[in-house]
Amino acid sequence: MKITLKSPLDMHLHLREGTMLQAVAPLTASCFAGAVVMPNLISPVDNLEKVQKYKEEIEASSNSASFIPYMTLFFKKYSRAELEAAKNEIIGIKLYPAGITTGSENGVSDLGNINDTLCLMEEMQIPLLVHGESNGFVLDREKEFLTVYQNIAETFPKLHIIMEHITTADAVEFVDRYPNVSATVTLHHLFITLDDVIGGLMEPDLFCKPIAKRPRDLQALRAAVLSGHKRIMFGSDSAPHPRHKQECCGCAAGIFSAPVALPMLAELFEEADHLDLLQSFTSDIACKRYGLQPPDKTVVLEKKAWTVPNLYGDLKPFGAGRHLRWSIKGEEIAQ
Amino acid sequence: MKITLKSPLDMHLHLREGTMLQAVAPLTASCFAGAVVMPNLISPVDNLEKVQKYKEEIEASSNSASFIPYMTLFFKKYSRAELEAAKNEIIGIKLYPAGITTGSENGVSDLGNINDTLCLMEEMQIPLLVHGESNGFVLDREKEFLTVYQNIAETFPKLHIIMEHITTADAVEFVDRYPNVSATVTLHHLFITLDDVIGGLMEPDLFCKPIAKRPRDLQALRAAVLSGHKRIMFGSDSAPHPRHKQECCGCAAGIFSAPVALPMLAELFEEADHLDLLQSFTSDIACKRYGLQPPDKTVVLEKKAWTVPNLYGDLKPFGAGRHLRWSIKGEEIAQ
Repeated sequence: MKITLKSPLDMHLHLREGTMLQAVAPLTASCFAGAVVMPNLISPVDNLEKVQKYKEEIEASSNSASFIPYMTLFFKKYSRAELEAAKNEIIGIKLYPAGITTGSENGVSDLGNINDTLCLMEEMQIPLLVHGESNGFVLDREKEFLTVYQNIAETFPKLHIIMEHITTADAVEFVDRYPNVSATVTLHHLFITLDDVIGGLMEPDLFCKPIAKRPRDLQALRAAVLSGHKRIMFGSDSAPHPRHKQECCGCAAGIFSAPVALPMLAELFEEADHLDLLQSFTSDIACKRYGLQPPDKTVVLEKKAWTVPNLYGDLKPFGAGRHLRWSIKGEEIAQ
Repeated sequence: MKITLKSPLDMHLHLREGTMLQAVAPLTASCFAGAVVMPNLISPVDNLEKVQKYKEEIEASSNSASFIPYMTLFFKKYSRAELEAAKNEIIGIKLYPAGITTGSENGVSDLGNINDTLCLMEEMQIPLLVHGESNGFVLDREKEFLTVYQNIAETFPKLHIIMEHITTADAVEFVDRYPNVSATVTLHHLFITLDDVIGGLMEPDLFCKPIAKRPRDLQALRAAVLSGHKRIMFGSDSAPHPRHKQECCGCAAGIFSAPVALPMLAELFEEADHLDLLQSFTSDIACKRYGLQPPDKTVVLEKKAWTVPNLYGDLKPFGAGRHLRWSIKGEEIAQ
């Protein structure tokens, strides 16, 4: 049994820099036709020059003619001239509230002061990607941020807003209310709840932001994705952290899932008897919502048992050691 | 400025065994007149012989004439003869639902089948100490268990039931409803919420069971304790884990707080302008509820700056590195 995916896309990906970039870029480029690359580097990607330089580094590292890195700018106040110059080099601009996650120190500290830039983005049709969390209690952050989303969605009805990595039933409900709003869902938020993170032992490998929520939230995410929601698309939020940094003096957030995403999604969609919706979740919805024409690339998933490696180099993948029924055909798994 | 505590008691303590016991027992014995010692060893303390042997080991390790280890039996089905033989050697029997925390594998798996033993305990006036969590979603476990508490409290109205280490506003409300119910509150649950555990970085040193909850739960615990609640007493639940075991492949639950408890409580009660209630929280309520007469022991806390050590041997204490205004007078801090 096989399923052929046409130009799968990862609409939310962290590739980092330097040797880490070199290690992870090929793992995505081998099985995706494109990925939306996050700009929250140590020095944020916040001008055209940085975008171009980072894109070149990614292309050199991924070394694939059938993979496009869709670049993003780090949100700040941009002038019309800056946006006009950058427009054709980016897929959108990513907004981080200040301090809310890894590499967000230079993010937005006053959400009441962003409308000038949002107005330009709406006019130029540059999508707005958002890490939507308040600085409140950890489990309430996404829900509390919905008022910000609502305000932006209503003030800029022609701005395409993407709620990144949604994790709650409340967020799923919110997406339905505004036609200019899309959302991405990660692999891990389709599989784990807070119980997996801290319900038994504490599992630093499952620590991520936003944190995984309640069983009913997991169910709401699955229900939306597995019913073919027309504005919810796949974005892994795959984020590599080397093992030696995940030590017990405060562990950083981030789950590395890029190389296991497609086989694990195939399992999930198969169990729901909806393999027919995998193509739209992993490519078509994104193409339609963003207006993309990714490189032609065929990725074949076959029903052939595979065990997720414990490590990819220094990186522990999501699902390490898990026995999967699906694998990527012809894929040599680098370990 | 000084405050003199008469015979302070820690009504919930883990001392473990062997070299760990030898390391931690003196730290409690130096500043408490007694402590209720938990029976969840690798081989549970579930008969009189084990109680006596463990008590001897604790006494040898603590090496203090002014410290009493109040022993507990691990709950299982006990006969009348067993309970009569053990009664004078124990302060109560500790019930763990199976699998709910460290060393609870042999705990109770069928809570519908414990009434015979509870009936004997009520008749003999042997208190029941409970780790009150269901096996549900991690944040709901304590609340879900309240129906079990309610059932026991109503079925055995003369049985003294102690809700150990309560963490929620719901549990505080529950204590008020049944005169035969008491509760203990830990040091750490008076200081942290889930935000401290997973809201920024993930902090394995703050991982405990029950997990710390919401800000409103912290407020409810503080309000109860700092208003002199007549049935809520101090029990640290201090639980030593050596640093090398707290690695990022699943971290065990437990916070080591014994040596810092009294100074940190003094700070908390002082900030609430209720130093007058510290004596009752740390001793008098427990003496009254359990009918104890602990050894005469005077512990003087003085307002003298102190920095919590980063390590006690191999153990990282709660509040490591924190600058405190209060310290224990005459205490040589073993590091």
